[in-house]
Amino acid sequence: MEINKTIDHTVLKPQTSSTDVEKICVEARQHEFCAVCVPPYFVGRAKQFLQGSDVLVATVIGFPYGYAGTMAKVEEVKRAVEEGADELDIVINLGALKSGDWPQVKSDIERVVTAIRLKGKVSKVIIESSLLSQSELARMVQICNEINPDFVKTSTGTQGGATEEVLRYLRANLKAGIKIKASGGIRDNSTARAMLSAGADRLGTSSGVALL
Amino acid sequence: MEINKTIDHTVLKPQTSSTDVEKICVEARQHEFCAVCVPPYFVGRAKQFLQGSDVLVATVIGFPYGYAGTMAKVEEVKRAVEEGADELDIVINLGALKSGDWPQVKSDIERVVTAIRLKGKVSKVIIESSLLSQSELARMVQICNEINPDFVKTSTGTQGGATEEVLRYLRANLKAGIKIKASGGIRDNSTARAMLSAGADRLGTSSGVALL
Repeated sequence: MEINKTIDHTVLKPQTSSTDVEKICVEARQHEFCAVCVPPYFVGRAKQFLQGSDVLVATVIGFPYGYAGTMAKVEEVKRAVEEGADELDIVINLGALKSGDWPQVKSDIERVVTAIRLKGKVSKVIIESSLLSQSELARMVQICNEINPDFVKTSTGTQGGATEEVLRYLRANLKAGIKIKASGGIRDNSTARAMLSAGADRLGTSSGVALL
Repeated sequence: MEINKTIDHTVLKPQTSSTDVEKICVEARQHEFCAVCVPPYFVGRAKQFLQGSDVLVATVIGFPYGYAGTMAKVEEVKRAVEEGADELDIVINLGALKSGDWPQVKSDIERVVTAIRLKGKVSKVIIESSLLSQSELARMVQICNEINPDFVKTSTGTQGGATEEVLRYLRANLKAGIKIKASGGIRDNSTARAMLSAGADRLGTSSGVALL
């Protein structure tokens, strides 16, 4: 697959402006990226900027810390889908995970993924792998295999990023039907290719143009 | 006023655990801090740990990026108040601000502050001053003067922190009834005292014990 078709062209900093979003939408059309990934507030605008193209609109839910309540996340999903989001990248409740409250980790993600599935949209579960121990990672993989989201995504990009080791682990242990999105620190072509070789199906990066 | 009574003893990192929350609650009781400030997921637990003490429970809404929709923020407020939050620190929609969409910036904060006021709780509007130009700061002050939250808070602590200059500007330009919470980078006693001298009424810090 062409590398451009694997890229979610991303701008998620808190001070993102409409001008930033327009720029990445123009670039995404030009380079035929898979999607743009923008803050919830900009979903409607990105949809307009991308009208008539095949580029999808992705956004983030509970981003970047994941510890908002499930109903707040579901509310964000509803709004984003109404405004045109095709794909939704959800942060897990890391606070619950670090407190050993696995039933809460699972039910939070399950309810949000179900809300997304009912709308016919694509779900990506962000596990923030750089903050997980090996056993926590294993348990998250098990939960994801039970919930069956469209993608597992390695990182928010705010806490360290994807590693080849984690990608290989995910690919070896996630069900074959669950795709993988690598994100965080992917800034050049060789890193991008290494991530794809290690098992990534999609790359989240703000350096999409530079790395082509 | 004793410095301990100005402190919101804070833990907000994404990987915060129940153990972290218990620790800051124990410290807050011991040193008679004003409040603890914890992720939404931990509000109920903090309330339990603090039972029988005067320490308040604060939490954060739309934290730390602020670009989730207003209804998601209102949903977070509802849940947090149900679980026992006394004070709610809300991040403004910086994306709307940086796009010049001031009506949206205002209506977002106004609706969330109103929801908090109707519950009889304390609102703190986080303006993330380190990301604002002088004219953006001036306009945010004007909006806050119109909406009248209990506090204006300088920073989330993820994007640079409070400065004495900003505190002096806020104190000179906010209505007298609006208090100021300084946060971000307050790690020692002399910084804490400088912030209070420059106009802060409350200090948000994860170094509350060290700075006493």
